[in-house]
Amino acid sequence: MTETFKRGAAFPAAGRKLRLGVVGGGAGSFIGQVHARGARLSDRWQIVAGALSSRPDVARASGQAWGLDPARSYIDWHEMARAEAARPDGIDAVAITVPNHLHFPVAMAFMDAGIDVICDKPLVNALDEARALIEKQRQTGLIFGVTYSFAAHAMVRQARQMVREGVLGRITQIHVEYFQEMALLPADAAWSGTPWRQDPAKVGGAATTADIGTHAHHLAEFVSGLRMTELRADFHRLGADQPLEDTAFMTCRFDGGVPGTLLISQAMAGASCGLRLRVSGTEGTLDWDQENPEYLHHRPFNAPHIRISRGHGAGMLSDATRFVHMPRGHPEALSDAWANLYEEFAIAIEARRDGRDLPEGLLAFPSLEEGAAGVAFIQAAIRSDAEGGTWVRCIFDA
Amino acid sequence: MTETFKRGAAFPAAGRKLRLGVVGGGAGSFIGQVHARGARLSDRWQIVAGALSSRPDVARASGQAWGLDPARSYIDWHEMARAEAARPDGIDAVAITVPNHLHFPVAMAFMDAGIDVICDKPLVNALDEARALIEKQRQTGLIFGVTYSFAAHAMVRQARQMVREGVLGRITQIHVEYFQEMALLPADAAWSGTPWRQDPAKVGGAATTADIGTHAHHLAEFVSGLRMTELRADFHRLGADQPLEDTAFMTCRFDGGVPGTLLISQAMAGASCGLRLRVSGTEGTLDWDQENPEYLHHRPFNAPHIRISRGHGAGMLSDATRFVHMPRGHPEALSDAWANLYEEFAIAIEARRDGRDLPEGLLAFPSLEEGAAGVAFIQAAIRSDAEGGTWVRCIFDA
Amino acid sequence: MTETFKRGAAFPAAGRKLRLGVVGGGAGSFIGQVHARGARLSDRWQIVAGALSSRPDVARASGQAWGLDPARSYIDWHEMARAEAARPDGIDAVAITVPNHLHFPVAMAFMDAGIDVICDKPLVNALDEARALIEKQRQTGLIFGVTYSFAAHAMVRQARQMVREGVLGRITQIHVEYFQEMALLPADAAWSGTPWRQDPAKVGGAATTADIGTHAHHLAEFVSGLRMTELRADFHRLGADQPLEDTAFMTCRFDGGVPGTLLISQAMAGASCGLRLRVSGTEGTLDWDQENPEYLHHRPFNAPHIRISRGHGAGMLSDATRFVHMPRGHPEALSDAWANLYEEFAIAIEARRDGRDLPEGLLAFPSLEEGAAGVAFIQAAIRSDAEGGTWVRCIFDA
Amino acid sequence: MTETFKRGAAFPAAGRKLRLGVVGGGAGSFIGQVHARGARLSDRWQIVAGALSSRPDVARASGQAWGLDPARSYIDWHEMARAEAARPDGIDAVAITVPNHLHFPVAMAFMDAGIDVICDKPLVNALDEARALIEKQRQTGLIFGVTYSFAAHAMVRQARQMVREGVLGRITQIHVEYFQEMALLPADAAWSGTPWRQDPAKVGGAATTADIGTHAHHLAEFVSGLRMTELRADFHRLGADQPLEDTAFMTCRFDGGVPGTLLISQAMAGASCGLRLRVSGTEGTLDWDQENPEYLHHRPFNAPHIRISRGHGAGMLSDATRFVHMPRGHPEALSDAWANLYEEFAIAIEARRDGRDLPEGLLAFPSLEEGAAGVAFIQAAIRSDAEGGTWVRCIFDA
Repeated sequence: MTETFKRGAAFPAAGRKLRLGVVGGGAGSFIGQVHARGARLSDRWQIVAGALSSRPDVARASGQAWGLDPARSYIDWHEMARAEAARPDGIDAVAITVPNHLHFPVAMAFMDAGIDVICDKPLVNALDEARALIEKQRQTGLIFGVTYSFAAHAMVRQARQMVREGVLGRITQIHVEYFQEMALLPADAAWSGTPWRQDPAKVGGAATTADIGTHAHHLAEFVSGLRMTELRADFHRLGADQPLEDTAFMTCRFDGGVPGTLLISQAMAGASCGLRLRVSGTEGTLDWDQENPEYLHHRPFNAPHIRISRGHGAGMLSDATRFVHMPRGHPEALSDAWANLYEEFAIAIEARRDGRDLPEGLLAFPSLEEGAAGVAFIQAAIRSDAEGGTWVRCIFDA
Repeated sequence: MTETFKRGAAFPAAGRKLRLGVVGGGAGSFIGQVHARGARLSDRWQIVAGALSSRPDVARASGQAWGLDPARSYIDWHEMARAEAARPDGIDAVAITVPNHLHFPVAMAFMDAGIDVICDKPLVNALDEARALIEKQRQTGLIFGVTYSFAAHAMVRQARQMVREGVLGRITQIHVEYFQEMALLPADAAWSGTPWRQDPAKVGGAATTADIGTHAHHLAEFVSGLRMTELRADFHRLGADQPLEDTAFMTCRFDGGVPGTLLISQAMAGASCGLRLRVSGTEGTLDWDQENPEYLHHRPFNAPHIRISRGHGAGMLSDATRFVHMPRGHPEALSDAWANLYEEFAIAIEARRDGRDLPEGLLAFPSLEEGAAGVAFIQAAIRSDAEGGTWVRCIFDA
Repeated sequence: MTETFKRGAAFPAAGRKLRLGVVGGGAGSFIGQVHARGARLSDRWQIVAGALSSRPDVARASGQAWGLDPARSYIDWHEMARAEAARPDGIDAVAITVPNHLHFPVAMAFMDAGIDVICDKPLVNALDEARALIEKQRQTGLIFGVTYSFAAHAMVRQARQMVREGVLGRITQIHVEYFQEMALLPADAAWSGTPWRQDPAKVGGAATTADIGTHAHHLAEFVSGLRMTELRADFHRLGADQPLEDTAFMTCRFDGGVPGTLLISQAMAGASCGLRLRVSGTEGTLDWDQENPEYLHHRPFNAPHIRISRGHGAGMLSDATRFVHMPRGHPEALSDAWANLYEEFAIAIEARRDGRDLPEGLLAFPSLEEGAAGVAFIQAAIRSDAEGGTWVRCIFDA
Repeated sequence: MTETFKRGAAFPAAGRKLRLGVVGGGAGSFIGQVHARGARLSDRWQIVAGALSSRPDVARASGQAWGLDPARSYIDWHEMARAEAARPDGIDAVAITVPNHLHFPVAMAFMDAGIDVICDKPLVNALDEARALIEKQRQTGLIFGVTYSFAAHAMVRQARQMVREGVLGRITQIHVEYFQEMALLPADAAWSGTPWRQDPAKVGGAATTADIGTHAHHLAEFVSGLRMTELRADFHRLGADQPLEDTAFMTCRFDGGVPGTLLISQAMAGASCGLRLRVSGTEGTLDWDQENPEYLHHRPFNAPHIRISRGHGAGMLSDATRFVHMPRGHPEALSDAWANLYEEFAIAIEARRDGRDLPEGLLAFPSLEEGAAGVAFIQAAIRSDAEGGTWVRCIFDA
């Protein structure tokens, strides 16, 4: 409805757009473009610098395509961190969109340079790296956000708040699944866009678990408010012949012993991006599917089912309405979720720069700790599979 | 379409309705009524005798309500087997709808009396009982059908034939789930309709696994054509405080090592009768949901999704069209599936009586062996859970 | 849920099954079979007599296939009416499933013989015929039901009661559509099952309007509780070349001037049996689709959508729960709706025979007057189309 | 799939972002923000100037919020046209997002200044105004795009191309509906966001027909490739008491006499933004719903239904894949559609500036003529309703 379509004054802008630098994202990169679309749509950022590729010609061409000042289109991200930190109009934050094994050194370099970090998932490949980043953040007070992008859909925030407000009663079981199909392509095509995903040295021993498993793991924890404490994993290779798993089935326990399952496969024919979460409690179940992100299905016990859709009106909670840019029925989707995330990053970074405190609970972008939890999850799954499916603790110990 | 709405001559009738006797099904019984509805709708049967309850007054009142000749409304099923076998117009078959622990003695009594058997699932509580029934069938040549009713939906038959014809390529993974909510009722209400389901002596050590788990297990095997060979199970009690599990999460392996999962719960708030099967292969995935039985979703690799609906026309296979009673869009559902099953039982029984052979593949009603496989599944799940989730072989060894 | 799965004592049975005779329904007939399935599934009726075809050999063969006593398998329905009326075990009611132009004489013959009538729709071809039947019913007090079968789905009854209880506020608009595709078949196949539907002499000047239009018209009135008072119609021939319309688009007015639309076509490619009703009021909209009859969609103003499904539990109204044979999620469908209708007929007929009064509102099977309203609707549509789409009054004037 | 996720070189960029000026869109405006989001997300535009409001303080504050150079934040759009035309870095195009009655003078002013125009719909309020704009465009050769935004969804383009390639056979009927609910708010709230929509002087005599009816009309023509030639309309006021209609039901004829319907209401409780188009032909039907824009439903005659979803792979046509920014299952929605539109505008404007010809059929953004067709549609509907629902020709005569 038109009259309900008003953003509050909750998000004061900086008076200028923040300056974003991007590492990775050059020609051929998918995820770098997705970050950029989110940043642009949020209207909080301008992309002013980048080390878009490690190959000089690609970096240069990509920088030109992105409209970067050639002086700020870097080949080397060390250089970029140094140079940007030195400029009066240097970047306010860096977005890290490189392969997994580079997340750690790049993040460290920019934190060392005093620059806030927005990092793709999974955070890093090793627990020690995660610990080092957390320690660094403690020392510096820098903002560090991890782009578990699905957590920024309005209906995911609605689900999270409904759980927190007790709508489901006591949580009894949690099921999350994430199915894609690309691993069924011929071996030379299946991972052609991101060949490093099947390189153990670059992904730390797990492919699909690191790629989409972390999304599933994060979403389950984010919405339920419970940590996954233990898991049991079986890895499978069902598609093209590759070194690492393309499929994993896990049973798990969450805080308080709540049981659940996490099923992931990139070799499920006909699946596109099938991330679905069900959080079930004594009084109802919530069901959300990434491919239809505007709808949250609430199924109370022994009662009609309810389909909540993004918008204002009866039943909409504050965490969700904060992200309503268009009225109900004017669908928002993944670009909008990324914009939501980049908006939250901007608010946090502006507040830090201004020394302002923000209201408790205003922001919920995934934190460094949430990134670290994903690393613990991957490591536990690898170990459980290797041990034949034993129960392995998967909480991140700082 | 009207003109396509013709049944072939594939199912010659007996020239008379077959005579059915029912054991169980008296006042308060749900499943006995469901059998009766299927038998009536099939138009192949008349219900002429029953031992509808072990309580004389209930048996009598129920017999009257069902319109039985008082002389054929028995209190005792031993007596019923004897008396009906002795009558020239005795029953052609018995439908067994009593609690699980009675399936075995009742089935044996009627087989001893030379009467064909239609038995609810799970078949029996112990592997030895299953073996004894199989041995008895070998000796007698009697027909023995098990009412895994979901296997008689036209779209399930379509799915099965599509798999057999190779539409999915090589099967790579199988997922089946079955969710209900009644265990979330207060303890005194949760299983009030069938209290024996939580009595270990009557259900052989598993509640939900025996009740709905066997349906899920059978459907997965029936459609995929693969046997579940091993499983790993965790049992949970998430609803009302009861002796036995109301929830179980299993990972499994099918013939050839195909991995899968089987998730069941009767404590999933908002779930009604959520039995969903996904069979996935290198070239496509089939997805079927019991609550919307007219639709079979076929998702080929990297191509548009296809929704097949019951009826005639392009893409419909013979096993499915055999069960088309009404044209596409005139929905059939569970009563019709039960009628399909009772039609198949009638055809088999008539053929046995007449000494006729039926064309290979004409009938696919669940057999005694399929019932026995369910018993092996239950026993394996109980053992795996007891051992902390070890892999346990779950094939029935005759 | 098992425990909620109890039928009340609202429907006392006769102590015997009622005896049904069928006119029409012989080999090749679709609708006769559908009546028979409903009667059987209801468990209130046995089919004991029939004039299944006007062709002696077909009548005889069909009678045998239906298991009729040859003495009660008639060639001529006049003879059947006379003979059955004379038998002490004569039929309790006749089901009329012949082409439209025969409804009137057959119904009259059986009413003359003092036999209750169950008649397919449309009732008759002319308003005078409808008036004569009503007059006859006044004189005789016979039961006369019309098989607008969709009105017997539990969720349609739920919708009707919700409207009556004011859940939607004041009704503001009504839209009903009914789309099928068979008219797109080649000319010699399109109406091959029911060629008389395109014979003006047998259908009274309208094909699709009489066939499916009457269903749409009845459903709209039945659920909304409002009479369609005026309509404006355009007829079209979009499929195979035939004498009569296969498509009609109407705008209409209901009691109180409530506007609406009624769109029907049997030349809509890809449509199976797409009857959909939307009744909208100041506080909400109800939406029901015949192909998914277990779900009633309730969309309140500016609030989450609600999907009500057949069963017991929160929000279920008495008119719907009366028709719950299986718990929620165990889908019922068209056979069950027909059984509901035949159950209601049985209750009414038993009560008439016993001289009992039934509670107000217990039964809602479509009446002779509702059948007559359909005739008025057809006639008005024919006239409006002929006059170039003028507004024509379409209320039946007795 | 990652590897298929490559944009071709079909759209050479300008080497710089184009400069956009916006008229309207100040605080309180919904549609101005939507334009701005599309422009930003397309990455082809920077918003550098605006006359965001006719109220000086609002214009100033909005300009600041949008980050405009104060010197280019105008109060008066005449002044803006003059000043921007005079600047060497003046705007490349103006986006007109003011109330309907101002579209004409604003568009004329900017065309007079030699600036390309992007104008919201409906184009103008009078046919003469439309003719004058067309004449002006003929003289100047300026680009003029109309933001029928739904036409820029990938799946709408897919539908359009499927029709053009004959997938549906001969088109037989077209149905389009657009339902919203805001008119059911109390009178003082129903149109509070855009009160001018109920001011006859500002909208030319129709409210809902001009607002959402034009979208429905355009979408039907755009996808079917047929012009609506005649219509018959009834206007209704079902919601808050207001001068103009909030509901209209129309029957219509398209080129070649193809019949159809167009149903619109802003007083349909529970409807959000329910724009649905069905184009049906002898061989199949296409069905698209704005609220779920990623899916195009294709229902061939007597065959399984097909759900096409945005992405690459089997069955995807060139007009759709041109707009794939994220792989299938990573949902795009309304912001992305607006970005598609702004991308097309940019390509056209760059080509005009460079004097380049573009390949035939590369672009399909709605043209000035398509805008004019919407004006003719509105005028015809107003006249038909006034005359009691007569058939009125609705083709725009240039």
